[in-house]
Amino acid sequence: MTHRLLAAAAAFALALPAAAEEPPPTPLSPGEIVDAAPAADWVAIAPSDLLVMDLAPDAAGKARRVVIQLMPAPFSQGWIGNIRKLAAAHWWDGTSINRVQDNYVVQWGDATEKKALPNGLVTVRESEYEAPLDKYLQAALHTKMKSEEAGLLAAFRQSGDKKVQAVKWAIPRDPFAEETLVFRGWPIAVDRQEQSAWPVHCYGMVGVGRNLSPDTGSGAELYTVIGHAPRHLDRNIALVGRVVAGIEHLSSLPRGTGALGFYEEEAQRVPIASVRIASELPAAAQPRFEYLSTESASFAKYADARANRRDPFFIRPAGGADICNIPVPVRRVGTK
Amino acid sequence: MTHRLLAAAAAFALALPAAAEEPPPTPLSPGEIVDAAPAADWVAIAPSDLLVMDLAPDAAGKARRVVIQLMPAPFSQGWIGNIRKLAAAHWWDGTSINRVQDNYVVQWGDATEKKALPNGLVTVRESEYEAPLDKYLQAALHTKMKSEEAGLLAAFRQSGDKKVQAVKWAIPRDPFAEETLVFRGWPIAVDRQEQSAWPVHCYGMVGVGRNLSPDTGSGAELYTVIGHAPRHLDRNIALVGRVVAGIEHLSSLPRGTGALGFYEEEAQRVPIASVRIASELPAAAQPRFEYLSTESASFAKYADARANRRDPFFIRPAGGADICNIPVPVRRVGTK
Repeated sequence: MTHRLLAAAAAFALALPAAAEEPPPTPLSPGEIVDAAPAADWVAIAPSDLLVMDLAPDAAGKARRVVIQLMPAPFSQGWIGNIRKLAAAHWWDGTSINRVQDNYVVQWGDATEKKALPNGLVTVRESEYEAPLDKYLQAALHTKMKSEEAGLLAAFRQSGDKKVQAVKWAIPRDPFAEETLVFRGWPIAVDRQEQSAWPVHCYGMVGVGRNLSPDTGSGAELYTVIGHAPRHLDRNIALVGRVVAGIEHLSSLPRGTGALGFYEEEAQRVPIASVRIASELPAAAQPRFEYLSTESASFAKYADARANRRDPFFIRPAGGADICNIPVPVRRVGTK
Repeated sequence: MTHRLLAAAAAFALALPAAAEEPPPTPLSPGEIVDAAPAADWVAIAPSDLLVMDLAPDAAGKARRVVIQLMPAPFSQGWIGNIRKLAAAHWWDGTSINRVQDNYVVQWGDATEKKALPNGLVTVRESEYEAPLDKYLQAALHTKMKSEEAGLLAAFRQSGDKKVQAVKWAIPRDPFAEETLVFRGWPIAVDRQEQSAWPVHCYGMVGVGRNLSPDTGSGAELYTVIGHAPRHLDRNIALVGRVVAGIEHLSSLPRGTGALGFYEEEAQRVPIASVRIASELPAAAQPRFEYLSTESASFAKYADARANRRDPFFIRPAGGADICNIPVPVRRVGTK
């Protein structure tokens, strides 16, 4: 059955009339570009960077697994270290999803606020909401980076806007920050004057609930974005990762009826059966994921297509995109 | 029970220490500003501009009503005229919600694609995806507008960027358009060079499903945005309104497992019991809504607070916001 669709998939490839010369190829959609990316353009995510949250099965008895990829250094490592300790202590087992606010967040943790935290959690300072640009570039340069990219990034740091344009995935017109870019698999905002960089609250990003400043949260209370990117939270609260699978188990939950979307009744809270770092699971049971390298030509093509939709459904390419309109493709490897 | 909250409500007002002078007032949150807006700042929405969609009751037997506010002239009037005819013909009664795609849209209409459309629907041209700026300003000037605002808008049209800055709710740094503004209750993008204006795909906006160009859709197939604003759709497809109540009945639906989030099984589709223009309902049964006038001082304060969160939870105001981060407040009047 065909449906009136508002966005085309591969099924909408045009049939072009025969001509003496080869017709230009039908422009690919962003999804088609991703699907065509060679294996070498994909980067395996280390199992130690995956947080695996199993909710209680749904009403039909189906499993509900949410997988979260944790951010790399230099971002938010204090909270991420705490999260690793909490997961190792099986601390979230028996906690719950407590808040679902439409066009905002799903939040989970210990509804009683009485459960003792494991030993060894660190208190993270507010300054850690951002990473110094120095450290950011250093972390980048210490990895196996192509020299060309290193050149581009060094130029980016030292130069003015013209060089920034040369970094294809930098988006200069952003209402919230001097500039935003997708770097090493993550959406980042940068302020070169302040020499700092910070993660951005796109859909599916995971952050750390806290009380009022100077509290920064331990990592025991987490949330994910299920609506339009609440960029006003950037630099005000820690981001630690993103949901890479199973977001639908969170975004489709009934909305809470209490203030800020909190569930008012115990029975409404969704039990969390377990949360584990994937590397703690038996090897055969570890889910595996990979992301499209943001340093690859495929990603550059994909980002360009997101900003300029030329595939058949579209009439007028936008000529631009915001950082959260260019989500980094992440896919499962195998079937777990 | 107190919860670790990631965003404060009025409950988080700080208790400041006693001092010889009055402490500065605690900055209000955007929600508090809206709640404090005087009655005169609210604009009643005409019942003829409200589309009332009643879904089948949920599993617990609870009613599920979605109310949509239709856009005013000069935007999308061809499709809106069709929608009025479809509603008058009770055409959607017995149709269904057929597609729920995470971080994208919920779409509804006739899954069989066989139901005969009512007579009198017009075919709308692609040029209607935008409104000429002339017509846009003319429509504005023909309404009961404060002369000061008329001056601002005329200046906006003729001048360069400096005057645009004077229009407090114009947002110059937008990745998708020359500029965006909230005008007369709606999120709009503008291109002064092309002398055109068009509605913007924010969360909850409602649009018209279509096939490939040159088809523009009749209005029989509708969708609403349930994720990060898909601005790449602007000017490529018609927007006709926004959900003002009951979006949670759509955004919390199970995601479809077919391509693009279409439901694969008949049983998954959510039946639509009826769709009516509110003015067709008995007077006592008509839901009533009002929106915060975007020409009011309250709205300017609210927009400023959205762009610069100074309420106690926040540490660092963003200093900017995108158009979809400043949703126009709409509230129910009475209890229907």
